[in-house]
Amino acid sequence: MKKIYLDNASTSFPKPKCVIDAISNYMTEIGCNPGRGAYEQSLDSGRMVYEARKLINDLFNGPSPNNVVFTKNITESLNIAMKGLFKTNWHIITTSMEHNSVMRPLRNLQDKLNITVDIAECNKYGVLDVKTVESLINDNTKAIVMTHCSNLTGTIMPIMEIGKLCREKGLFFIVDTAQTAGIIDIDFDKMGLDILTFTGHKGLLGPQGIGGFIISDRANKITDTFIEGGTGSESHLETQPNFLPDKFESGTLNTPGIAGLKASIEFIKNVGISNIRQHEKNLTSLFLEGLHRINNIEVYGPCDAELKTGTVPININGMDPGEVSYILDNEYKIMTRSGIHCAPSAHRTIGIYPKGAVRFSIGYFNTLEDIDKALYALKCISN
Amino acid sequence: MKKIYLDNASTSFPKPKCVIDAISNYMTEIGCNPGRGAYEQSLDSGRMVYEARKLINDLFNGPSPNNVVFTKNITESLNIAMKGLFKTNWHIITTSMEHNSVMRPLRNLQDKLNITVDIAECNKYGVLDVKTVESLINDNTKAIVMTHCSNLTGTIMPIMEIGKLCREKGLFFIVDTAQTAGIIDIDFDKMGLDILTFTGHKGLLGPQGIGGFIISDRANKITDTFIEGGTGSESHLETQPNFLPDKFESGTLNTPGIAGLKASIEFIKNVGISNIRQHEKNLTSLFLEGLHRINNIEVYGPCDAELKTGTVPININGMDPGEVSYILDNEYKIMTRSGIHCAPSAHRTIGIYPKGAVRFSIGYFNTLEDIDKALYALKCISN
Repeated sequence: MKKIYLDNASTSFPKPKCVIDAISNYMTEIGCNPGRGAYEQSLDSGRMVYEARKLINDLFNGPSPNNVVFTKNITESLNIAMKGLFKTNWHIITTSMEHNSVMRPLRNLQDKLNITVDIAECNKYGVLDVKTVESLINDNTKAIVMTHCSNLTGTIMPIMEIGKLCREKGLFFIVDTAQTAGIIDIDFDKMGLDILTFTGHKGLLGPQGIGGFIISDRANKITDTFIEGGTGSESHLETQPNFLPDKFESGTLNTPGIAGLKASIEFIKNVGISNIRQHEKNLTSLFLEGLHRINNIEVYGPCDAELKTGTVPININGMDPGEVSYILDNEYKIMTRSGIHCAPSAHRTIGIYPKGAVRFSIGYFNTLEDIDKALYALKCISN
Repeated sequence: MKKIYLDNASTSFPKPKCVIDAISNYMTEIGCNPGRGAYEQSLDSGRMVYEARKLINDLFNGPSPNNVVFTKNITESLNIAMKGLFKTNWHIITTSMEHNSVMRPLRNLQDKLNITVDIAECNKYGVLDVKTVESLINDNTKAIVMTHCSNLTGTIMPIMEIGKLCREKGLFFIVDTAQTAGIIDIDFDKMGLDILTFTGHKGLLGPQGIGGFIISDRANKITDTFIEGGTGSESHLETQPNFLPDKFESGTLNTPGIAGLKASIEFIKNVGISNIRQHEKNLTSLFLEGLHRINNIEVYGPCDAELKTGTVPININGMDPGEVSYILDNEYKIMTRSGIHCAPSAHRTIGIYPKGAVRFSIGYFNTLEDIDKALYALKCISN
């Protein structure tokens, strides 16, 4: 039986072949570390890294390739962003649909920096009303940090409107694009972002182990370093360099990961994000329609594929989500993820805490056949 | 002309073929994220990660696989170790041969936590006298953080003796094994370590982008988290789990990197660290002997290969190190690294600051022929 992967919100799979080839080629042909003024092969490595920065900056319409910083994953990016930018006693706004990668560092900063946090409640579809956010802004509010899209319901957030609000009110704006980068158009400039955090291994179709962020010059000015160490620059100084991207990139870079991410972004550019989005939207529509025709199934999140990504959480009445996922894997070779998805607040928001849900998440490499088989399996299990 | 890579102290090259194959295989056959109680392919991913932890714990004789934490590189490991463990007003001892991955975070903590730092001066060969360290210990001293081996001179430090001292005096002991892991036997328990930081891509022959640390239970008890976020555990809580390794591992792991590192450690186990060390020592001896027969060359660090790794810094009288490296690469296809090597204090210690040096660093895949060619090239350039 052919395996069907529907856990793309966790990591995309498979990866385009060019990604794996790029990593192998890098490791075989270049392999060494970037270095200024070193040998040719090291300069090749540096050029590859720069080209990757440029691709990412172009993809997101960032301010400059040097404002693109590489990290190991978006969780590190979010930690650097919040811990570096937020100052003592700041008031911060976030939403009730956030992943623990936002919630847990915020909790830490409440203790360490005495920041205060207000959470904008979303409705039971995970939809955020901009007015709710606006009503939480006070004289001490300095920043909004939020996801571009819920990892539980796939609900797309009104980033453009919140960005406009941030500009009007002079707030810093940090966005978690874990669920949207590579799938939905993101424009750093038009969306009024200060820190766009991204991960390489989900919609961007790259390997696990590489992520990053793009930071505005105004946010960078007051953002502290997070990891200090060797940068290959200003090596005579025992203080961290103050310029981008070195300020935030200490130690050896994940160059094989960057080579893989570079290849995957080239792949995405060739396919076109709008085509990727259209394909995923079509499959999501069909999946949602099919789900609504099956008895005993509860579907969470928006019903309209236009308002969401391909992430669809469901429950079968009377069954534990873990049991459903187990049967899907064991009997139908369909891979999904059950539980709280590192987003307890989001589960509370849509009213399924602590039960959780079975999360299906559609990716670019899924087919109509995958959706049909998933629907067939759910029909059998729910009967 | 065949290229000769002599920059293994920066990153080892080439990597064993099994490492590149393991990454490709992982990405093609498994690919997805580890997960407790998820589908089979996800459990395979989790098993692979656990086996890698076990291999690393065995290699270094650590307390348990769960005390092995993965990071992106040793610089992150050192930052987590120092920033998590050190408390306000602590007195810390380090050495004058440290890399900026130790020096820069220490500088940061002097400002942020008001720690005080004393630096044990090494001699002009980079050799540390244990008595110097002992003389710096005061009633407020809480920890020693130092390298196992200088990345400039290759000088091996008396870790066993310093570890003994730490146990006697009740100090925490953090060691940077960037230059020794996979090359020299390291025993977490016998050496009296509390935090052993390692990187995967140098002597361990794995890919860039993966490193880690092993932490003792007593150090872990008082070490704060560094990056909070989703861990796939205690997902219903918005606080970071308090158990190892999840406490320090937030967000998606670099599973391709871990797969590569696992393969490289298996490779090292098959070859045997003592054989690797012997091979590198032989080549280093021959290189040192040859260097001493060439006029106009200054060699830094110990003259005896027994006391050092295969890292040999030199200068040709009257020439800039960058120029020498450039000629080596351009005319002889020999790759070396020039400058301050992210270790200004070490350069001061051996008396070549700010000039720097040309650093040759021998790895397991170098041959006698490589050494002969390097010596020939240096003879020609220095004439």
